[in-house]
Amino acid sequence: MKNIIIGQSGGPTAAINASLAGVVRQAMRSGEIGEIYGALNGIEGLIGRRIINLRSSIKSAEDYDRLAATPAMALGSCRYKMPAPPHQTYDEILRIFKDYGIGYFFYIGGNDSMDTVKQLSAFFKQKGEDIRCVGVPKTIDNDLPCTDHTPGFGSAAKYISGSIAELALDSSVYDMFSVIVAEVMGRNAGWLTAASVLARDTGCGSPQLIYLPETPFDPDDFIKRVSEYSKKKQLLIVAVSEGIKDKDGAYLSASGASVDGFGHAALAGAGRYLESLIKDRLGCKVRSIEFSVLQRAAGHYTSATDISEALRIGEEAVIAALSGQTGVMMTLERVSNSPYLVNFGSVPIEMCANLEKTIPAEWIIDGCDVSDEMAEYLRPLVKGNAPSFEEGVMPSYLYLDKTIV
Amino acid sequence: MKNIIIGQSGGPTAAINASLAGVVRQAMRSGEIGEIYGALNGIEGLIGRRIINLRSSIKSAEDYDRLAATPAMALGSCRYKMPAPPHQTYDEILRIFKDYGIGYFFYIGGNDSMDTVKQLSAFFKQKGEDIRCVGVPKTIDNDLPCTDHTPGFGSAAKYISGSIAELALDSSVYDMFSVIVAEVMGRNAGWLTAASVLARDTGCGSPQLIYLPETPFDPDDFIKRVSEYSKKKQLLIVAVSEGIKDKDGAYLSASGASVDGFGHAALAGAGRYLESLIKDRLGCKVRSIEFSVLQRAAGHYTSATDISEALRIGEEAVIAALSGQTGVMMTLERVSNSPYLVNFGSVPIEMCANLEKTIPAEWIIDGCDVSDEMAEYLRPLVKGNAPSFEEGVMPSYLYLDKTIV
Repeated sequence: MKNIIIGQSGGPTAAINASLAGVVRQAMRSGEIGEIYGALNGIEGLIGRRIINLRSSIKSAEDYDRLAATPAMALGSCRYKMPAPPHQTYDEILRIFKDYGIGYFFYIGGNDSMDTVKQLSAFFKQKGEDIRCVGVPKTIDNDLPCTDHTPGFGSAAKYISGSIAELALDSSVYDMFSVIVAEVMGRNAGWLTAASVLARDTGCGSPQLIYLPETPFDPDDFIKRVSEYSKKKQLLIVAVSEGIKDKDGAYLSASGASVDGFGHAALAGAGRYLESLIKDRLGCKVRSIEFSVLQRAAGHYTSATDISEALRIGEEAVIAALSGQTGVMMTLERVSNSPYLVNFGSVPIEMCANLEKTIPAEWIIDGCDVSDEMAEYLRPLVKGNAPSFEEGVMPSYLYLDKTIV
Repeated sequence: MKNIIIGQSGGPTAAINASLAGVVRQAMRSGEIGEIYGALNGIEGLIGRRIINLRSSIKSAEDYDRLAATPAMALGSCRYKMPAPPHQTYDEILRIFKDYGIGYFFYIGGNDSMDTVKQLSAFFKQKGEDIRCVGVPKTIDNDLPCTDHTPGFGSAAKYISGSIAELALDSSVYDMFSVIVAEVMGRNAGWLTAASVLARDTGCGSPQLIYLPETPFDPDDFIKRVSEYSKKKQLLIVAVSEGIKDKDGAYLSASGASVDGFGHAALAGAGRYLESLIKDRLGCKVRSIEFSVLQRAAGHYTSATDISEALRIGEEAVIAALSGQTGVMMTLERVSNSPYLVNFGSVPIEMCANLEKTIPAEWIIDGCDVSDEMAEYLRPLVKGNAPSFEEGVMPSYLYLDKTIV
């Protein structure tokens, strides 16, 4: 029997370990796979032969569930761009795969990771090697094409929309007008920022304004809108993507650059830029908040839909590889919204590697809001609270045994 | 039968509405109370006769539970300091209480709110009026004396320790040294920052350094310690209170003041100050994160212990008032740690109003860590996940009917 190896790459999410658990579980129960290896720090660790045996860490049904409930990346990550072929790196990887008897390679990641899958599967095909490479999508940014959404997105969307609703409650306790600017991750695609719209489902009415990187940002129009809220003395919460750009495509964060007490130029984010803009033009009470990296690996507040789909897509990746597929990315296809049903499938990796999916223009309203279709698209993805594991008082995470084999 | 009125004051917490629910529930079932009024925006709204009837909003057992699970302050808040007596404001409040047939006043809040209870109860006694005033403690800062801890603290402590554990997982995915500085609320008392120590219970080993306002901050010693971690190439998470001060008692945040792109002097917080200090002296990779107001009203991640105690202390306040007590603050007395048992009691308000409880010196280690006694004190307070209410996808909060009566 051939062995498998799994890697994780890109930024952390709350669901990427659920996909790892899914791959391992399906590999175990298939009866068609020998050893189950993990590469530490993605393709970088693979090249450095920093390879561990996953069977020694994941031993019980509870271990799978605990791994699925552990945020961030149990195997570690890398930001490694494969060199353009031909390159000796490809031969080196083939040699390592031969040494470890690898027949299947699973890479859980985003855009860059799918490029790795594409390059490696093409190389192995060209060499006549039956080593099957399958990409398992994950990214909080939800910017991979060919799939209805990406695992990891739903949990981050839940954290952001829930936190915006709480901010709205927190900010409305005093009897005065104030503006909160909440900066959300997303350089080119505004899916996560758009997800803040779900906060309105709680009845809080916030966020009142939503700014996405898909639409050029117009400071004058923005100030006009804030000024209207200021006249009505209503609480105003603005959700803004870190990636908003001006009409020339330049990030607006840069123009608000600040200098700290030591003379360093600190790159102020989009949130701080809008905060300064409001102070400067309107002089009203304003505070900016960054959800920062907390939004991407908040294991305490994950979507049950997201975690179960992440686990399942890992399992489906093994089924696809065993059935002969290679050079593919696994996908989610939404069959219906009510009841929410998805099919798991796959597409040739060329269709998605290095491509970004942004928000359809018809789902963006006036450059400062999103449509009901967007909210309907989002709701099933954040639904339910995934179970957590607590032993004693704090969450009980699964840490992998990182002994190199 | 006499009527009661309840107000909320100070900063929001995730548990203050649970205390409100407790007062209302006990008042209803006592059979000794007529109308149940709420003052909007605390004593300020009371003086302005912005008074609502709480019976019209809270109708079922589920409504109590939903209110208890709604963060921030359903009645709104104020930051109002009572004028020194004698002052016409006292006569005006008495007139309002007479008009509304008030026999009992419950004020849920922190230090300033307890001062209001003190002044009003003294005034009513002096006038020979049987209007009983009871303070119900709440503050995420845990800085009220005479009580083992304050409702609201446990939930904020849970959010902070859980988020630090997630930050540790998130930050350790890349194979490189980095420093994260996490800034936690607390100007004079470091309880919340100290609570970050519980993250270590997850096995993540973070935070490695903990800086509290109780100990003067020494930049040279700090840099020496960070430098040692940098040599070991270990992940370093620093939890720092927003209120750290230098040896002369000056807030360190001020000396790191920055100027933004518009020329405004923005007050940089303690976290950004430490970030700049590390960049300046060591030049290593560092990122600061503020938990901001998200930490005080995170209704999605509350301690079951905290919410149930907050509810119960509200009930006990009604029992105390009906038994004849006035001019008191309700307290929690820890009977044992394992099993965790508390008694509810009360103390004369003079013993706690305007006083602050800071961390005992013997629980602070080397000015940059806390002891096992601190962790043992904290654990029961963050234990368990309080239930949330979701209808559809998002939390379902209870909004009060704010019709003025």
